[in-house]
Amino acid sequence: MRKEYLMTPGPTPVPSEVLLAQAKPMIHHRAPIYTEIILEVLDDLKYVFQTKNDIIMFASSGTGGMESAVVNLFSPGDKVLVASTGNFGERWVKISGAYGLDVVKLDYEWGEKANPQDIADALAKDQDIKGVLTTHSETSTGVTNDIKTIGKIVAGYKAVLVVDAISGLGACELKTDEWKCDVVISGSQKALMTPPGLAFTSVSDKAWAVVEKSTLPKFYFDYKTSRDALHKDQPQSPFTPAVSTIVGLGEALKLIKKETLEKVLERHAVLAKACRAGVHALGLELFGASDEMANSVTAIKAPEGIDGQAVVKTLRVKYGITIAGGQGRIKGKIFRIGHCGYYDKFDIVSVMAGLEMALKDLGYPVEMGAAVGAAAEVLYEGISVLS
Amino acid sequence: MRKEYLMTPGPTPVPSEVLLAQAKPMIHHRAPIYTEIILEVLDDLKYVFQTKNDIIMFASSGTGGMESAVVNLFSPGDKVLVASTGNFGERWVKISGAYGLDVVKLDYEWGEKANPQDIADALAKDQDIKGVLTTHSETSTGVTNDIKTIGKIVAGYKAVLVVDAISGLGACELKTDEWKCDVVISGSQKALMTPPGLAFTSVSDKAWAVVEKSTLPKFYFDYKTSRDALHKDQPQSPFTPAVSTIVGLGEALKLIKKETLEKVLERHAVLAKACRAGVHALGLELFGASDEMANSVTAIKAPEGIDGQAVVKTLRVKYGITIAGGQGRIKGKIFRIGHCGYYDKFDIVSVMAGLEMALKDLGYPVEMGAAVGAAAEVLYEGISVLS
Repeated sequence: MRKEYLMTPGPTPVPSEVLLAQAKPMIHHRAPIYTEIILEVLDDLKYVFQTKNDIIMFASSGTGGMESAVVNLFSPGDKVLVASTGNFGERWVKISGAYGLDVVKLDYEWGEKANPQDIADALAKDQDIKGVLTTHSETSTGVTNDIKTIGKIVAGYKAVLVVDAISGLGACELKTDEWKCDVVISGSQKALMTPPGLAFTSVSDKAWAVVEKSTLPKFYFDYKTSRDALHKDQPQSPFTPAVSTIVGLGEALKLIKKETLEKVLERHAVLAKACRAGVHALGLELFGASDEMANSVTAIKAPEGIDGQAVVKTLRVKYGITIAGGQGRIKGKIFRIGHCGYYDKFDIVSVMAGLEMALKDLGYPVEMGAAVGAAAEVLYEGISVLS
Repeated sequence: MRKEYLMTPGPTPVPSEVLLAQAKPMIHHRAPIYTEIILEVLDDLKYVFQTKNDIIMFASSGTGGMESAVVNLFSPGDKVLVASTGNFGERWVKISGAYGLDVVKLDYEWGEKANPQDIADALAKDQDIKGVLTTHSETSTGVTNDIKTIGKIVAGYKAVLVVDAISGLGACELKTDEWKCDVVISGSQKALMTPPGLAFTSVSDKAWAVVEKSTLPKFYFDYKTSRDALHKDQPQSPFTPAVSTIVGLGEALKLIKKETLEKVLERHAVLAKACRAGVHALGLELFGASDEMANSVTAIKAPEGIDGQAVVKTLRVKYGITIAGGQGRIKGKIFRIGHCGYYDKFDIVSVMAGLEMALKDLGYPVEMGAAVGAAAEVLYEGISVLS
């Protein structure tokens, strides 16, 4: 018997309130009760998105949400600018390529942030760019991009700003309307503390105007189909929705509203800061651009001579803590601790203790309690946010 | 939003396997399926009790199980020897008094163990003693009595040995048959990882012979009624049993069998040792006789000038960790960390981190990470038991 700890950047642990809600008897998605639920869920999502825009929801993974943005906003051959800072920036390139878009790529070193000035320059140089596709929290590197500044820039052009906020929304600040994000995509399984299976996208007025002109083929992911179904006398979803997951999400959103989004974000900031303090106390380095905004996931450089995947495996197999390794070109070079969603102070304490043990196993010099102590100092200071 | 941690010596956290089993549809207690379940549960309880004796189960608290022993074994005016080492030793005195027994009391300082020689002397001096009532793990003080030696002594007399093992069974070694315990009482809500509501008692042949002569009034708790119902063609419980709790207990017992009782006990020993190491690293003292056997609960002296209840309250209110305070005459002087049942290494790490924070709040000098580091060293050494 061993307790298992899930500390990946998604799926994340699900609170019992959500699990219990999902266990309620099935309801029919054409019945009035479903209308009540979906309207409340969409309203509460607007609160988390900080938007007055429509929210369109799909039974899909986050990638489905990203694809929906591409197929609804663009037409074959359209030019898009992708500011890519990691594996999920690359996903924008792949999806855009699959639909025959003309991709202009700003390719940053993994671990770096996108430089908003580069986007400004690209837009100024090429008025044909129809959209800027980028990433809020880049799950693969832990880096959070400066969407606020990027939004200000893109707003001055006809291009729409499309933001993958799948691991960031609800963990790192993202003001959809104030920051002028046209389409923001997120999913149920990260900071929203619900099992995987739901993607949602906010669509601004500027984006809706663009949607009207899009000619890429689409059916399931058609924003207009979803919007029209929501504007019927009895609002509903056009195709069978993931009812139980939506019911669970409704409960998760109630928890967020109760805590308040402000406190949720502060909590993530304190937990991430504690995680970074623990990592530093072990003499380890963070991967790339880490700052106060990297609150979804902490990416840590594997120490000299130790494979990052071995850290992940030791923690999982021997200590029951599942964290994430590096993806793509940085596999083996880093490991990542997720703390977006249903996490609290003693989760950080536990993963720091486990990390000490695993690193000791792998021959790294560890003073037991050093990481935990440093993390605990930060948690103690930030306790007003966590209590 | 805050995660809550339950680290009292009962009720204890319930594994999801048990919670899910309890959520199954209700079954009828006169149907064959119930017979299958109850027979398997009683068999598995024998494994945990390390006994071939009958096990009698009641829907009741542990105190109900203690009362059942008194009313089934004795007659009005019978003389019983109570070896009392704390609040639950006192409970034997109160129950025996309520039924008009003649109680001879060995009254130890709270925090001390019962001295088996005192029991030997009392039995040698007074051949009228019909029963010796004592406590395995004294929940109020953290002390585990030497039931093995006491069993050897009592076996030489006509008196029966009655052991309250409510918080001890499944956490600290207790060999019912080998140690010649005539009646052992336990409950669902401690090391057996199931919600409260079930008490069970093992009854030896020597005890059954005594039961035949008992004249104290009883109905619900009558051992013979329960035994006879189990020996019918279709074995069952005489009165409506706590069906869902029994189904849950069945799942908990499967977890224990899978881990093996040996490893379960070793796990408790490592966790308790880690807890003690953390406490010592903070410069705190354990309460009373603490040794390798005190594996259910760790009782800690409140430091000079700090109220033990304030430690409990600060941990609960500010840090979301529920531990226990002192009971009765030692209220305020100690606080108790429970670790019997569904506990693992990072629970100890978490409670140590919380304790550091709470003590710091209360003005006690704390080097953050000291207790956690010391506990982690022990957990790391004992990892083969915990993995």
